[in-house]
Amino acid sequence: MEQPPFFDRLAAAQKRNRSLLCVGLDPDPAKLPAPFKRRDAADVARFNREIVEATADLVCAYKPNWAFYEAMGLEGMKALDTTLEAIPDAIPVIADAKRGDIGNTAAKYARAIFETWNADAVTVSPYLGLDTLEPFLEYRDRGVYVLCLTSNPGSADFQTPRRLYLDVARKLALGDKYGNIGLVVGATQSRRIASVRQAAPRCPFLLPGVGSQGGSARAAVRGAWGERPGSVVVNVARAVTYASSQGDFAQAAREAASRFRREFESYVPEGR
Amino acid sequence: MEQPPFFDRLAAAQKRNRSLLCVGLDPDPAKLPAPFKRRDAADVARFNREIVEATADLVCAYKPNWAFYEAMGLEGMKALDTTLEAIPDAIPVIADAKRGDIGNTAAKYARAIFETWNADAVTVSPYLGLDTLEPFLEYRDRGVYVLCLTSNPGSADFQTPRRLYLDVARKLALGDKYGNIGLVVGATQSRRIASVRQAAPRCPFLLPGVGSQGGSARAAVRGAWGERPGSVVVNVARAVTYASSQGDFAQAAREAASRFRREFESYVPEGR
Repeated sequence: MEQPPFFDRLAAAQKRNRSLLCVGLDPDPAKLPAPFKRRDAADVARFNREIVEATADLVCAYKPNWAFYEAMGLEGMKALDTTLEAIPDAIPVIADAKRGDIGNTAAKYARAIFETWNADAVTVSPYLGLDTLEPFLEYRDRGVYVLCLTSNPGSADFQTPRRLYLDVARKLALGDKYGNIGLVVGATQSRRIASVRQAAPRCPFLLPGVGSQGGSARAAVRGAWGERPGSVVVNVARAVTYASSQGDFAQAAREAASRFRREFESYVPEGR
Repeated sequence: MEQPPFFDRLAAAQKRNRSLLCVGLDPDPAKLPAPFKRRDAADVARFNREIVEATADLVCAYKPNWAFYEAMGLEGMKALDTTLEAIPDAIPVIADAKRGDIGNTAAKYARAIFETWNADAVTVSPYLGLDTLEPFLEYRDRGVYVLCLTSNPGSADFQTPRRLYLDVARKLALGDKYGNIGLVVGATQSRRIASVRQAAPRCPFLLPGVGSQGGSARAAVRGAWGERPGSVVVNVARAVTYASSQGDFAQAAREAASRFRREFESYVPEGR
């Protein structure tokens, strides 16, 4: 594969579009804007295409979450395929699939995400250990964002007790032999983001939880900022894609994306 | 949904076939027996059908691992569909998908597994916390096997330090309000299985790692045995499905399944 590493490609898209914004493509048929009457998988694909066309010069990445497509069965997976085709080559795709399995099975998931779907990066779970990430990491031109500290209340069940999330961050930073590991850190965790950054100084962060989930983008971007290009990506889904439920949804998505982009840029430390 | 709870249906299949054996349907096109020349998704579906027909009276469940089908793209998902159709209604299907995501996304995965695919049970990851399992648990007639202690070396990265796996087992046992949580415990972890059983006395266990991975079935069945019907399921994949690489693969699979079934039954404590 003759392409630069994922985080370089991400950084290039960030620079070109002056944007830290990743738009989450998580379409729920029931929530499609009014013009979509059938609310089937084909409508989902059309909706996504319009969102992408309206925002592609304002984002650094798109992040479709696989669950939304899988819930629609085979037709949903076709809609995912159509969606990926609509995304310009210069904008990286993060497959938010949160996969995690052992040995030869992890290799099959890596193959599904990086070959069958040809995504630029993936999200994976750390619970099964570093050996289970290896098949993903071996695709050295791709990015592997590992769940570290999530934005939901349940992060208090196993992640924050005894600071497991810091242990995860440290072990991943140590195990990042190809430089293609990133961490998923929820933007709602603003008190803890800086400690994760300390634990993994060189790993880029993917920050979900801004927008509908209410995380502070300011605290997230400042706390997460790191030395590497591509060190911060902020994901927003619903607050962009469902900015309007009417016929002006694409224009409304563009305006929302533009606002988030400008806001996030304003938090970038001086002299980046 | 007018059906008994998953663990009752599993126990009924165990009783009917006198078997704790679950056969993992994890077909790798490259490893299909010699008669399958094309080694495509359609061959995979045909292979699975023959394995199922040869073993359905010897097992208590089938466990297809989603990764193997996803790696073949849309055609692979069709092969999964055909495979599920070939499994008799009386034999429960455990969707080994190891999903895990937050909030409305978890609900989409639950819908995909339990409605689109209509599986009887699923495997999920605990890392994101109990609130993320809730959308799965709400399907009260289905089973939710949560990863607790896995069979791979990487289980030593996060699961066994500070005995996180016991914390996972305890919290899940406490949170099992509908009685449909099970735990995945690797059979290679024979020294630790009894401690997991103590931490979660009523949760049924799914034990992978016997067969090709080399776990001791005796230690696993004895250590995992619990008070509830369906408390122990032992998964074997490759050692059954690839018992022969030649034209006699179905008969060889039947013989291997029969041996495992008899072996596992011999470890059941007296007066079960």
